[in-house]
Amino acid sequence: NINGERLWQSLMDLAQLGATPKGGVCRLALTDLDRAGRDLFVKWCEEAGCSITIDVIGNIFARRPGKDNSLPPIMTGSHIDTQPTGGKFDGCFGVMSGLEVIRTLNDHNIVTEAPIEVAVWTNEEGSRFAPCMMGSGVFIGKFDLEETYAIADYEGAKVGDELKRIGYLGQQQVPGHKVGAYFEAHIEQGPILENEEKTIGVVIGCLGQKWFDLTLKGVESHAGPTPMSLRKDALLGAAEVIQAVNRIALEHQPYACGTCGHIEAYPGSRNVIPGEVLVSIDFRHLEEDQLAHMISELEKVLEKLKTENGLELELKPTANFPALYFHDDCVNAVRTGAQRLGVPHMDIVSGAGHDAIFMAEVCPAGMIFVPCEDGISHNEIENADPEDLAVGCNVLLHAMLERSGV
Amino acid sequence: NINGERLWQSLMDLAQLGATPKGGVCRLALTDLDRAGRDLFVKWCEEAGCSITIDVIGNIFARRPGKDNSLPPIMTGSHIDTQPTGGKFDGCFGVMSGLEVIRTLNDHNIVTEAPIEVAVWTNEEGSRFAPCMMGSGVFIGKFDLEETYAIADYEGAKVGDELKRIGYLGQQQVPGHKVGAYFEAHIEQGPILENEEKTIGVVIGCLGQKWFDLTLKGVESHAGPTPMSLRKDALLGAAEVIQAVNRIALEHQPYACGTCGHIEAYPGSRNVIPGEVLVSIDFRHLEEDQLAHMISELEKVLEKLKTENGLELELKPTANFPALYFHDDCVNAVRTGAQRLGVPHMDIVSGAGHDAIFMAEVCPAGMIFVPCEDGISHNEIENADPEDLAVGCNVLLHAMLERSGV
Ligand SMILES: NC(=O)NCCC(=O)O
Ligand SMILES: NC(=O)NCCC(=O)O
Repeated sequence: NINGERLWQSLMDLAQLGATPKGGVCRLALTDLDRAGRDLFVKWCEEAGCSITIDVIGNIFARRPGKDNSLPPIMTGSHIDTQPTGGKFDGCFGVMSGLEVIRTLNDHNIVTEAPIEVAVWTNEEGSRFAPCMMGSGVFIGKFDLEETYAIADYEGAKVGDELKRIGYLGQQQVPGHKVGAYFEAHIEQGPILENEEKTIGVVIGCLGQKWFDLTLKGVESHAGPTPMSLRKDALLGAAEVIQAVNRIALEHQPYACGTCGHIEAYPGSRNVIPGEVLVSIDFRHLEEDQLAHMISELEKVLEKLKTENGLELELKPTANFPALYFHDDCVNAVRTGAQRLGVPHMDIVSGAGHDAIFMAEVCPAGMIFVPCEDGISHNEIENADPEDLAVGCNVLLHAMLERSGV
Repeated sequence: NINGERLWQSLMDLAQLGATPKGGVCRLALTDLDRAGRDLFVKWCEEAGCSITIDVIGNIFARRPGKDNSLPPIMTGSHIDTQPTGGKFDGCFGVMSGLEVIRTLNDHNIVTEAPIEVAVWTNEEGSRFAPCMMGSGVFIGKFDLEETYAIADYEGAKVGDELKRIGYLGQQQVPGHKVGAYFEAHIEQGPILENEEKTIGVVIGCLGQKWFDLTLKGVESHAGPTPMSLRKDALLGAAEVIQAVNRIALEHQPYACGTCGHIEAYPGSRNVIPGEVLVSIDFRHLEEDQLAHMISELEKVLEKLKTENGLELELKPTANFPALYFHDDCVNAVRTGAQRLGVPHMDIVSGAGHDAIFMAEVCPAGMIFVPCEDGISHNEIENADPEDLAVGCNVLLHAMLERSGV
């Protein structure tokens, strides 16, 4: 069994870096705080006897040798970057659980057949730089490296430059090394396990995601003397889009989500009709055809805004993840682990994207969910129960041992 | 007659300070560029033999003595601060016209009975600091000085500190000195004169204005695993408000305007449901009871967002200007001036606020409008015809001479 207190302490120590007054964490990808978090992880892993490799997109791999090191490693991991108002557990739980698995194997002098690896993936959140799951996407060769280096945040800073700046532009090439199987432990980030009173979610699949940045162009003009009938108000158009995104998601239940998280109106003056607005759109669904239908419904609204409201529109895709079902072997390894430990569990679908989605394209992959308080994440009040986290980490240990062999 | 070429040249010289690549001007109130514009105006006025006074809110008064300096001055003026994406004429036309009137009187060695003054009012735009017409509001004692000093921009910089920083915190106390009559020349900022093919708008009144900053609070949460039915999306609420503001204005025609110019969504991440949104609201109408009715309609929408969408709302007034009709004597002086010069003119209502509105509370006041291209202002492409501007300045000269006496 893993050491639940040690796991909790590691999570709390990591949460100091970028701690916010409201009890959350702000540690955006590739900032100085991200560097500090990475440094701490590397130090802990070296102390646990691991060797460290960093690849050209800044993913960190901490490796504990097995008996047969010609076998591809059994990998676990997640991310330590957070949302601007993120919590202590999203991502960090998966990484610290991986570390705790290694520490537990050390405690018991267990040598696995295949090596064990813990990965810290770069910019999973996609908050500072879109798309999300950037590090795993580059690792599996899904994202072009040079194009990814050129992606800028809203202030213009680029991924490649920021990687170099924080000292995490590594040597290992992409696509990366072979992996035997991949597991990821994560808080659910939704309310289902809590409502159903289950400790473990056996994740069978993930919603597909399509993200866009929509730019609406009207004519900026004076809020007083410009008659209502002559206006081309870009923010009024954006309001219609925001409502449409919500309505479309409601019309495609179950499993549909539609969110506008970011908005900028230009020039942003109280008495100027906005001439240009940027708004982000995040659509999700478990069925690909439904996701496609949601987008075609959105396009109808945009067409109307063009012809009836005289706005110019540009819809730029920023992320595109297909819906996915995880590999039976890994799903079963998680379910069996939970059964052996005798903990209440249920099958569940992930609404969030995870690096496991990309890893599933190159090896068998699976995920373990634990409840989080009120289903809230991407919020400073995100919280989880230390005992649930310990159970999740134990299930991870069992699943990894089943795949790595002892 | 005034010198139209000289007037145009002054406008073009002033427009260099804060010139934008698209041909507009960005010279926000109390910035370094505002200081540079003020310095240039002061230099020109001193060269024209005027004495300069600055008051405690940074209003500048350039005075040309009359025969009887015990008489209160006949004043003209406007502002030289601009919108973030403003034009060369909004405000500056009124100030440069005042200077041109003085230069013309100098050219012809005319000494008026009462002194003549040109005012540059602080922060008329209300873009960096709300409310607009701040300088004239403090001058007439409508706004409390200490409260005004404490008003901050979106970044937290305060009016009082910024006045000191740019060296325009003057000595003259408020409420300010007596004024015999006040005229203001301005571009129309709307399409009416152009459509009606008139060169001069005899401004009979101004729309009342009510501005608010609305804060909507929901619960920020993850855009994927948070079911649509459990969301409290502050941006979705803001979208309903933006549409309601537009609809309410359409329902209160004629003379009604409703605009949301500024919006901020927090935390502003693509995959986070916004937990807090700030949106500005600008309502205008010529009839006070209609304006009040527009606000009560808005309050119904807000009530619904509270009870049905579970959002917390805070509606903070940021500006409040009553609708107003100008003094008959001044309106007639403008109309007579246009008639004597034989130029096509019409009565008109101003959709924009102007310092003349506040001055109308302490002395007879009137305004002169000239057309602007396509009725567009608060936009870098704002444009006006040099000949129209010269005619407007001539009408100002005639109106001022009528009131000051020669
Ligand atoms: N797990 C998680 O929060 N991932 C971020 C990407 C997403 O928005 O789904
Ligand atoms: N004239 C002008 O643009 N004034 C700014 C205040 C307003 O929005 O009416």
